[in-house]
Amino acid sequence: MEAERTLREEELTGLAELAAQLRVDSIRCSTRAGSGHPTSSLSAADLLAVLISRHLRYDWSYPGNRANDHLIFSKGHASPLLYAVFRATGAISEQELLETYRQSNSRLQGHPTPALPWVDTATGSLGQGLPVGVGIALAGQYLDKLPYHVWVLCGDSETAEGSIWEALDKAGHYGLRNLTAIVDVNRFGQRGPTELEWDLDTYRRRVEAFGCHALVVDGHDLAAIDEAFGRARQASGPTVVLARTVKGKGVPEIENRPDWHGKALEPDRAERAVQALGGVRQIRVAGPRPVAAAPPAPTPAGKAPELPRYEKGAKVATRNAYGDALRALGVRPDVVALDGEVSDSTRSDKFGEAYPDRFFEMFIAEQQLIAAAVGLRVRGYRPFAATFAAFLSRAYDFIRMAGISRADIALAGSHAGVEIGPDGPSQMGLEDLAALRAVHGSTVLYPSDAVSCAALVAAMVDCEGVSYLRTTRGKYPVLYDNGDDFPIGGSKVLRDGSDVALIGAGVTVHNCLAAADELAREGIDARVVDLYSVKPVDRQRLLDAVRDTGGRLVVVEDHYPQGGLGSAVLESLADLAEPVRVNHLAVRGLPGSGTPAQQMDRAGIGAHAIVSAARALA
Amino acid sequence: MEAERTLREEELTGLAELAAQLRVDSIRCSTRAGSGHPTSSLSAADLLAVLISRHLRYDWSYPGNRANDHLIFSKGHASPLLYAVFRATGAISEQELLETYRQSNSRLQGHPTPALPWVDTATGSLGQGLPVGVGIALAGQYLDKLPYHVWVLCGDSETAEGSIWEALDKAGHYGLRNLTAIVDVNRFGQRGPTELEWDLDTYRRRVEAFGCHALVVDGHDLAAIDEAFGRARQASGPTVVLARTVKGKGVPEIENRPDWHGKALEPDRAERAVQALGGVRQIRVAGPRPVAAAPPAPTPAGKAPELPRYEKGAKVATRNAYGDALRALGVRPDVVALDGEVSDSTRSDKFGEAYPDRFFEMFIAEQQLIAAAVGLRVRGYRPFAATFAAFLSRAYDFIRMAGISRADIALAGSHAGVEIGPDGPSQMGLEDLAALRAVHGSTVLYPSDAVSCAALVAAMVDCEGVSYLRTTRGKYPVLYDNGDDFPIGGSKVLRDGSDVALIGAGVTVHNCLAAADELAREGIDARVVDLYSVKPVDRQRLLDAVRDTGGRLVVVEDHYPQGGLGSAVLESLADLAEPVRVNHLAVRGLPGSGTPAQQMDRAGIGAHAIVSAARALA
Repeated sequence: MEAERTLREEELTGLAELAAQLRVDSIRCSTRAGSGHPTSSLSAADLLAVLISRHLRYDWSYPGNRANDHLIFSKGHASPLLYAVFRATGAISEQELLETYRQSNSRLQGHPTPALPWVDTATGSLGQGLPVGVGIALAGQYLDKLPYHVWVLCGDSETAEGSIWEALDKAGHYGLRNLTAIVDVNRFGQRGPTELEWDLDTYRRRVEAFGCHALVVDGHDLAAIDEAFGRARQASGPTVVLARTVKGKGVPEIENRPDWHGKALEPDRAERAVQALGGVRQIRVAGPRPVAAAPPAPTPAGKAPELPRYEKGAKVATRNAYGDALRALGVRPDVVALDGEVSDSTRSDKFGEAYPDRFFEMFIAEQQLIAAAVGLRVRGYRPFAATFAAFLSRAYDFIRMAGISRADIALAGSHAGVEIGPDGPSQMGLEDLAALRAVHGSTVLYPSDAVSCAALVAAMVDCEGVSYLRTTRGKYPVLYDNGDDFPIGGSKVLRDGSDVALIGAGVTVHNCLAAADELAREGIDARVVDLYSVKPVDRQRLLDAVRDTGGRLVVVEDHYPQGGLGSAVLESLADLAEPVRVNHLAVRGLPGSGTPAQQMDRAGIGAHAIVSAARALA
Repeated sequence: MEAERTLREEELTGLAELAAQLRVDSIRCSTRAGSGHPTSSLSAADLLAVLISRHLRYDWSYPGNRANDHLIFSKGHASPLLYAVFRATGAISEQELLETYRQSNSRLQGHPTPALPWVDTATGSLGQGLPVGVGIALAGQYLDKLPYHVWVLCGDSETAEGSIWEALDKAGHYGLRNLTAIVDVNRFGQRGPTELEWDLDTYRRRVEAFGCHALVVDGHDLAAIDEAFGRARQASGPTVVLARTVKGKGVPEIENRPDWHGKALEPDRAERAVQALGGVRQIRVAGPRPVAAAPPAPTPAGKAPELPRYEKGAKVATRNAYGDALRALGVRPDVVALDGEVSDSTRSDKFGEAYPDRFFEMFIAEQQLIAAAVGLRVRGYRPFAATFAAFLSRAYDFIRMAGISRADIALAGSHAGVEIGPDGPSQMGLEDLAALRAVHGSTVLYPSDAVSCAALVAAMVDCEGVSYLRTTRGKYPVLYDNGDDFPIGGSKVLRDGSDVALIGAGVTVHNCLAAADELAREGIDARVVDLYSVKPVDRQRLLDAVRDTGGRLVVVEDHYPQGGLGSAVLESLADLAEPVRVNHLAVRGLPGSGTPAQQMDRAGIGAHAIVSAARALA
């Protein structure tokens, strides 16, 4: 293999020429755009020149080739360099690079996104590319069992993010020999020196303590880089190449200066820089190609999943139904599951027991949990990631970025709301509906019973984008018949009535049913709507309720009042011309401990409060 | 000092007796409650017995004594142990412990919160107590300059959270010699063995690589613990005591078993355990008291802040006004600022330049950024923490927990919305209003101009709970007169009109004004409302608009459609009997790159779209 040969003089010259082209192009496109990060691109140009010429096995004409290596820019702000790489490989034209970078409607955005077929995941929120790379590497080593390698370019500043250490810890724990992180240690962040500057030895000790090989190199010594990448590919575990580099390398006016972060060069300065670098080149790289034949993608085929069945009226927790349904979906070989060390609570342990080879324990590292799901999805799997609803908030930035990546990942958050009882507010998901609804392209589901929960889990497996299922800790009666249909975007009328509509989701549906009984005794005819699809919401069902009740709605949710089920209903009805009065019950105080019933009563979302709210509208 | 003496035999016996009491009480209260984490309490009982008897300098009768050490249970689920400690010190009675733990309306909640005067910060979401402890230690070493020590009990499972490494990195970077983390390495998490089990050497190497002293001890050897704590207090930098412990220690039936996480003992088993431990004791600990005299709290007094003034019509970015106002507030000695290595973008650098001693650079570690703010607030400071609005999502769990702690912290998120232009969606705060509104007790502000921004920053300094200010990247005209009043919960009518109301906040206020001009040319008389207080929202102003316009509202926001400004308006008007039609303009697609104007036009939140929306209502 090329990587194992010693470089000849003319090869070194060729690499230097390519590196110069990458620098020149990084400068040209950012200057043309008037913004961007040329200095952070220049520091890593030599690393990338060697990588794409001699180590990255990639079929640039066919990014869908499943034998391709993966290249992730965790330091997404170095997009000029990434796009210069694409231009050097012929993936994009010089014209596209120069004329469209950072322009409106361009796919060459300020930070990379999968709008480009060679980009696996959106980056630009630092510390995320490496954790996603861990997910891809997990797929490669444990599922695909293919020799592709995952190369992640990291910045040094982003090693301040805890998520980098979650990633290296998991890389070490899982012994990911197919993963190489390349840290561009140019010692300057946005505001000046980084914490560790060029203290490569401390980086090395941290990396090694986290279970990874560390290779320290001069990031501008092409032969040394080449040797390090060759060793990284052959290593018995994950490798971190710690490259000492100079920010702005190659352009004396801006080299190694703290005040040139994130600034495009002015045209005259750019002109001088390009000249100093030897001018524009038209080098076309032909790097190594993948050695394996393209293997098949994981297939959604398999036996048809046989969803669990429940007896109507039996008390079953929806989190148990999640586990049951997930296990049932396991007949599809593309379904994988992950958990944040609480799988006996979320009940994803049911899948883990049945399919241990497709279950990944991420321990208490929710950021890595979500990132691994995104990485597994990059390889075509259908990941389900679970933890407590409250603790998904730990990974909110990752979920946000998954939305930007349009990653099809399914999330399950258990122990939602005050219903959990005595554990107190730290364990209660009370803002998850607001947070997850606001993620671009998301789907938000909140079933009230085991039958609907199982059906929705089955629907999530083919859902586009980020989908989120909220489950309940306690056991509540099964309300529906096995086999009933629960389309995403739908809802159910559990009881008809035209005096007032009681609209709930999840646990509050049960409270609404109890309230409707009480109201019936008072002669008030209440409709009960199970709005299990919080996003998208069933607007037609809501319009029917408005029409039939004269616009009298009670919406009740086990969530803070902002942004949740109530907002979903109100947003859906915002443009109606006829009057709608919504009495909105939600958790307005700060909960403490207590039994589930005490908690819901105190929060004013129990049956009694619903009855009062309905009366007030009547 | 006590810690330096060798322990006599009778002292060791006394400590063992106290440890037995802590174990017995942990078992009793959790069994009585029927839930809780006795095994995770038993493993750390010896550590706490030594700590409170001989090292924690604390005046239990006066938790407000500012010379007191701090004790944080980062492993908040070990609340039985913490409350047993409180009982042993006399802070709470045996009756309160046994009868109220985890009960409704009790202050002894499942996980600790500052509802208890001896608790600094809510824990229970793992990996947060230590970062908050870093904030307290920063205050002690750099601001208070007092000899109090911060002791944080951590679990071993929570070291999988990246935030723990953000915390140790910052502890090392800032050389926090007043901080000791005690890791209870009992080798079992919720689901079985932890990643590192009893590999104390790897823990040690990680800790040392992150710049902290590491002391490995047998966590059940009272003399060894005593020596370690003594050394930790005297160390020249932060110390991590790595204590090898046994989960469930002291109760043979459940000792060192993976299947006893988070389970209360059944009454008969508890009875046997208490007997085995020698029965109930009534030991009252008199540990060391603080050596220093109580020093004064940081005071809000000082010169009256002189807010920056701006010329009406001049173009000023609100992020600049944030920096100007923050600098002006610096005359108050209790005001401190923190940033996530983007202070030249958020403009908190203006404060940092004027008051370098009260400015803390947290580098790119947003979780630690927020946690440090919480810790500084514990010590009475008024912290302002800033980063890009998008990157506050990285710390959402910390902000959520700050809400539960009722911590008075001010957050500023710059670069909100598509308005930022070419950088692309990873850098755009587009879900921050939804996320921050849903935090318990939060205040959310989004000024349109520099004058209102400065006034709101000044208001935030005395705001209760989590307050959030959203700022804009670009420059827009100053709309208000210096000295105008901008109360939290208020709004401004910038133009009167009764055909339709155009309601915006932040950058969209300017688009509304442009639209109103255009509509005026068409003979449509549009009111323009600046709803700068997104939470709480100015309901009366909205009611007036509904009344005067016949319920014709256009709400326009640079945010995704869910949970933001539109939802705030709709939630406020939900219960109105009269019809309200809201045409809601928000960012419905996934943005890319482009100029600010292109971005807003494409998202349908520019003046043109507002005009169309208003016409449609007329």
